[in-house]
Amino acid sequence: MNDMKAYTHGGDIYGLGPDILDFSSNINPLGMPEAAKRAVYENIGAYEIYPDPLCRELRAALSAFHGLPPEYFVCGNGSADLIYRVALGLGPKSALIIAPAFSEYERALGLAGCRVKKHFLKPESGFNLTDEVLSEIQNGPDIVFIANPGNPTGVVTQTPLMLEIAEKCRETGAILIADECFADFPEQDASLLAHAPRFKNVIILKAFTKFYAMAGLRLGYSVCADAALNERVRAALQPWSVSAAASKCGIAALSDSEYIVRTKSLTARNREKLSGRLAGLGLTIFDSKANYVFFKSGDVDLYEKLLRLGVLIRDCRDYAGLSPGFYRAAVRGEADNDYLIKCVGMCL
Amino acid sequence: MNDMKAYTHGGDIYGLGPDILDFSSNINPLGMPEAAKRAVYENIGAYEIYPDPLCRELRAALSAFHGLPPEYFVCGNGSADLIYRVALGLGPKSALIIAPAFSEYERALGLAGCRVKKHFLKPESGFNLTDEVLSEIQNGPDIVFIANPGNPTGVVTQTPLMLEIAEKCRETGAILIADECFADFPEQDASLLAHAPRFKNVIILKAFTKFYAMAGLRLGYSVCADAALNERVRAALQPWSVSAAASKCGIAALSDSEYIVRTKSLTARNREKLSGRLAGLGLTIFDSKANYVFFKSGDVDLYEKLLRLGVLIRDCRDYAGLSPGFYRAAVRGEADNDYLIKCVGMCL
Repeated sequence: MNDMKAYTHGGDIYGLGPDILDFSSNINPLGMPEAAKRAVYENIGAYEIYPDPLCRELRAALSAFHGLPPEYFVCGNGSADLIYRVALGLGPKSALIIAPAFSEYERALGLAGCRVKKHFLKPESGFNLTDEVLSEIQNGPDIVFIANPGNPTGVVTQTPLMLEIAEKCRETGAILIADECFADFPEQDASLLAHAPRFKNVIILKAFTKFYAMAGLRLGYSVCADAALNERVRAALQPWSVSAAASKCGIAALSDSEYIVRTKSLTARNREKLSGRLAGLGLTIFDSKANYVFFKSGDVDLYEKLLRLGVLIRDCRDYAGLSPGFYRAAVRGEADNDYLIKCVGMCL
Repeated sequence: MNDMKAYTHGGDIYGLGPDILDFSSNINPLGMPEAAKRAVYENIGAYEIYPDPLCRELRAALSAFHGLPPEYFVCGNGSADLIYRVALGLGPKSALIIAPAFSEYERALGLAGCRVKKHFLKPESGFNLTDEVLSEIQNGPDIVFIANPGNPTGVVTQTPLMLEIAEKCRETGAILIADECFADFPEQDASLLAHAPRFKNVIILKAFTKFYAMAGLRLGYSVCADAALNERVRAALQPWSVSAAASKCGIAALSDSEYIVRTKSLTARNREKLSGRLAGLGLTIFDSKANYVFFKSGDVDLYEKLLRLGVLIRDCRDYAGLSPGFYRAAVRGEADNDYLIKCVGMCL
């Protein structure tokens, strides 16, 4: 089957075989919270009937968890589903994407017939977003996509600048999509969630995928104070996109507050150690606060060499704005990270 | 939360409360096959990583089950997901829908900017599709949607006419979408599956939702002999639409061949009994071969009256081509069906 040609993401362990050690997708190495695992088999009866298209139970749980009204939430089949719902439901004519970025933004916007412009972050400024972006927003895109932390960079844009951007978008009539799928990993909060009630033009994207290690169950959500906007996002595609399994496990996962603390501290510790040792091998490390490290190597064949050793990292050369030599590797458990460092050392 | 306004399907038991007896969605009363239930909790490890976007394992199982090449299959988050993928991926300009029909066809085509024409089936001819449809196809729609058995009617279009339609579509360059989500229920086979290799212009839609009682897990698939067409359908929306839970349970469900035999005979027996007794109450029953009965009553308030008794049926007045007085009720287990009959008797 010659059907991989259109697939350009990390993590194709299914094509590579079961023995691969996968650093290309960024999943919490703690695995799913125990309560979520229990929820999988405690709710089998719910899998036999149609799920609630309005996800009332899950939205109530999210409302309690975030301290925001249930009307703010739209749930989807992973945050990728919500990216398509946003693009198709809002139907923007022009978009600004902060790049490098997750390629699904551009695919979804293209499907919606939207013209895309990119604001490129530069390696020489550490892939930091600056207020230069404000003048680009002034030019009037209908929608702006920013991932915070960035992906694949992991670099965090601090809240004051995010608020300036949200404000500028409001002035020009643009919708700001803040993709915060990795925002729970940094120890220091830089999320717009607390500011959601003040900005009807901001849609925050969140996922259970990475932080709660629920990638295989598919659960994401958006947060926005504008009910009319939410209705357009929800109604854009099929009504039953969230499975009962995802919903029940998501609700259970939210109940485990200790898991959040453990994940944050484990991620920070392992990331700093991994970054430090990769830097020690001569690689240029960028300032990721997410559960992955982003680095540059003079060796443009590092991906292939590591793959021969059974280690899969993300070769980032296919991201618009990056070139051969940029790589992303997930922060896994300590033994796995040590193995990665050992293998990188052998390759260089 | 005043957010039900845009929701026009059956089965909103979440809004009505847990004590409702739901005849509005059509789920196999046998429940999920035991092997599928076991698969739910035997595969929790697979829920922690990204699912395979190409569903290779599931497609191999479908290939073996149907005796068709794995390349024929595209899997989705329920067949509703595939309806949107077909509309967005193929981008037709004009469509013909055999009506009354599942409203998601028109919603999906509308989202894709497609002009929709409807070919209305008539109560006076028992909602049977005839070769009159061929002249409408001759007029040149890009895409034709036919559900077989029909939904909400349950009426089966026999294979010779389906083949004529497929042939006519081929002549005019149209794609035929044969929605066979209920095609496993009739005892007599009227599926186009066996003819799939001969028609590159036919896409057959199938679901685990109803027959395998997996509605809450979301799993559907399409079958088509044209690899280029399949690639367009697959690539239309997000890559990871099928959860690992749905995939693993689907594979397990296919292994239970005895379940298929039991379901077919139970459905036929209970449907005929239910139809007969409803006819005995003076209702006009149409010739459904699916796991639901479709009928007309002079009482346009029957839905409301039954709801007051805790029984939810599908009021079909909102289907284009139907009027107040048309109803659909699922074939459930014997005790539930008896209760429905008793309640209908009380209402009339």
